[in-house]
Amino acid sequence: MSKMSRRIIVDCHTHIYTKRLVLLLRSRTVNPRIHTNSPDGSEKLAILPQEVSGGRTVGPQYWDVRNKVSFMNRHMIDISIVSLANPWLDFLDAPQAVTSAHECNADLEQYCFDATQLFASGQGASKVEAERRMKAFGILPLAEGVDPKEVVKSLESIASSSSLCGAILGSRGLGKGLDHPELEPVWAKAAELGLVLFLHPHYGVGADASQPSGLWGSQDNGHVLPLALGFPFETAAATARLILAGVFDRHPNLRLLVAHSGGALPILSSRLASCVAHDPHVCNRLKHDPRYYLGKLYYDAVAYGPEELEAVANIIGRADRYKSGAAAAKITRESVEKGVQRMMFGTDHPFFPPTKSDGTVITDDQTETWRSVTENLEAISDVAAWSHSAKLGVAGQNAVKLFGL
Amino acid sequence: MSKMSRRIIVDCHTHIYTKRLVLLLRSRTVNPRIHTNSPDGSEKLAILPQEVSGGRTVGPQYWDVRNKVSFMNRHMIDISIVSLANPWLDFLDAPQAVTSAHECNADLEQYCFDATQLFASGQGASKVEAERRMKAFGILPLAEGVDPKEVVKSLESIASSSSLCGAILGSRGLGKGLDHPELEPVWAKAAELGLVLFLHPHYGVGADASQPSGLWGSQDNGHVLPLALGFPFETAAATARLILAGVFDRHPNLRLLVAHSGGALPILSSRLASCVAHDPHVCNRLKHDPRYYLGKLYYDAVAYGPEELEAVANIIGRADRYKSGAAAAKITRESVEKGVQRMMFGTDHPFFPPTKSDGTVITDDQTETWRSVTENLEAISDVAAWSHSAKLGVAGQNAVKLFGL
Repeated sequence: MSKMSRRIIVDCHTHIYTKRLVLLLRSRTVNPRIHTNSPDGSEKLAILPQEVSGGRTVGPQYWDVRNKVSFMNRHMIDISIVSLANPWLDFLDAPQAVTSAHECNADLEQYCFDATQLFASGQGASKVEAERRMKAFGILPLAEGVDPKEVVKSLESIASSSSLCGAILGSRGLGKGLDHPELEPVWAKAAELGLVLFLHPHYGVGADASQPSGLWGSQDNGHVLPLALGFPFETAAATARLILAGVFDRHPNLRLLVAHSGGALPILSSRLASCVAHDPHVCNRLKHDPRYYLGKLYYDAVAYGPEELEAVANIIGRADRYKSGAAAAKITRESVEKGVQRMMFGTDHPFFPPTKSDGTVITDDQTETWRSVTENLEAISDVAAWSHSAKLGVAGQNAVKLFGL
Repeated sequence: MSKMSRRIIVDCHTHIYTKRLVLLLRSRTVNPRIHTNSPDGSEKLAILPQEVSGGRTVGPQYWDVRNKVSFMNRHMIDISIVSLANPWLDFLDAPQAVTSAHECNADLEQYCFDATQLFASGQGASKVEAERRMKAFGILPLAEGVDPKEVVKSLESIASSSSLCGAILGSRGLGKGLDHPELEPVWAKAAELGLVLFLHPHYGVGADASQPSGLWGSQDNGHVLPLALGFPFETAAATARLILAGVFDRHPNLRLLVAHSGGALPILSSRLASCVAHDPHVCNRLKHDPRYYLGKLYYDAVAYGPEELEAVANIIGRADRYKSGAAAAKITRESVEKGVQRMMFGTDHPFFPPTKSDGTVITDDQTETWRSVTENLEAISDVAAWSHSAKLGVAGQNAVKLFGL
């Protein structure tokens, strides 16, 4: 780790709820909502209609900028690009979603401004100037019934902000998924503006998954299966659907950052290619082998292990081998290092908080070192096949370049 | 490839339907069934209640032993360990399932015998004697309502057969999944007998996945998403559930061969470990970090790409690092090569048949070279990090050892 002490650390995957959104969630009587019906009276966020164990404990770390700043300083994080945590605005009706997106983006800008004040007044451990240290992904009015034109307008508004540098989005789009043709103008505009879209899971897999015969079964495993597996399954499916819909053929400059290192997709991409090649519905639809498109994506490095990160880099690095008409490109150290440039550190804060030995959350976390930070930083350091500069890139420089920080 | 010309090739993932099972499926009026309601009048196998596009075309390659023998000779496959293709016996009532398992296992033994006769009379390209060239996984009476004692009896019967060398099973067990405590005697008996259990997907993800707002959405992508992603999602979930249920803590010698290179689980295993560590329901349940157990599994090499295979081997190879109480073991070339010994070639024949340029199946395949074979063999050859002997192991020797062929 000592060799990396002068690196810049950028956290591209770190969440908040705006205070206005918290008030909205507290006011609701059906999920998603924040309630205090738990045995200990603590506030719980219950997201899905069928919520395992009543939801997760939330507190100021989810909305208080001082908490985020403390977390950043404690972990030597130079820059955070915060994003709203799910469920975003999916649950609102169309006019509310449009209004709320506007309000959220204003609140996110204020959040960044407040952070700058705190950084300027404090003694942050960072080498980066105060005004650069807090940025945000904006939010788009993606909900059922919204006119795609409103989404396009929202992209333009985000692009004109100095503190917003992209937009987070879930997998449902306007209710029918990201592969629905109605979103075509959205991809076109995002590509034109060079905005990074951060694709993040929310729903996991279907409502029947927790039936005795369902995917998760009926044994009590807490949130583990929906979170560890359901989330990356959703991301993999959404990304594959974008590829199959030809979105990256029509918009090769679209910048899509995929959560949790691409979820389950990288390891399944050759299987995807084989299934595409054998299916008359799809085999002649795309310009390239599906594996080519995995080299066009960006990936956070939120995978918790060096072997996972190395695998993703290798799979990005081989992409040119699958470009139609190209001479079969060999994977080289250079192509893999180029792949690594598409990967960037994240923490998933304030999720995965420190716990006591019985697994319960330590709510006063002002002094704790978060395992989710150290594990993801160590994973980067521990990839034996990567050069020192490749590791510096993943820790921060790749994000600095991609987002123009 | 020339350096590998003297290798032995064992196909551990290759399917059939017994003729008796075909007759049963033809006699049914609800899925799963074989019907001729397709526009071209060809026989289609429709498996799930909601079947995309009416099912897949089936023909003699699914049940005729001469077809399998021709396929093996054409592709220089020395030994096949055939297994029933899904849906196995899940759809039968309990007494039928018990009877049918008995019949299927007798039919599978006959299938191996018939193959031996063909090999002995023909001019096979193999260096291996005729009687060793066709083996089979038996089938277990896993269906709702079956007494686990019947499953144990079936394991004992399989263990006493010279041509059956393990058992294939799906993810539902006796209807409530493989993590239900009622299956405890089954794991105990399989471990005691040293029988390899081959875990294979069938259901994919939930019935709502093809809704507009579901995981697969409503765009027409043929079978691609359920097959490329849904199958390995199911396998990952089932394997994770076995781990979380402590099955490998109680039965460390259980031999579980996981289809499609472990599905999505290997790349998500550090995420699984992180989620387990942060969840009070699970964090103190297991003897080891979840990643340790991935080193106890066996994996087919049906992943279609060298980067995928390399990633799986690295993830097996790191397992000892996550053994409780062990000094943090470093991953070495040796530990990875040891990991490779748990991987073994497969084809998934007769699925993924050769197609015409429009993607339709070439039904008379007596002379075709199957892409699914060459891709999976080339993937093994192309893993840069593996030694020649490691590759020979995956191509065949690992299976020879594991199954005592």
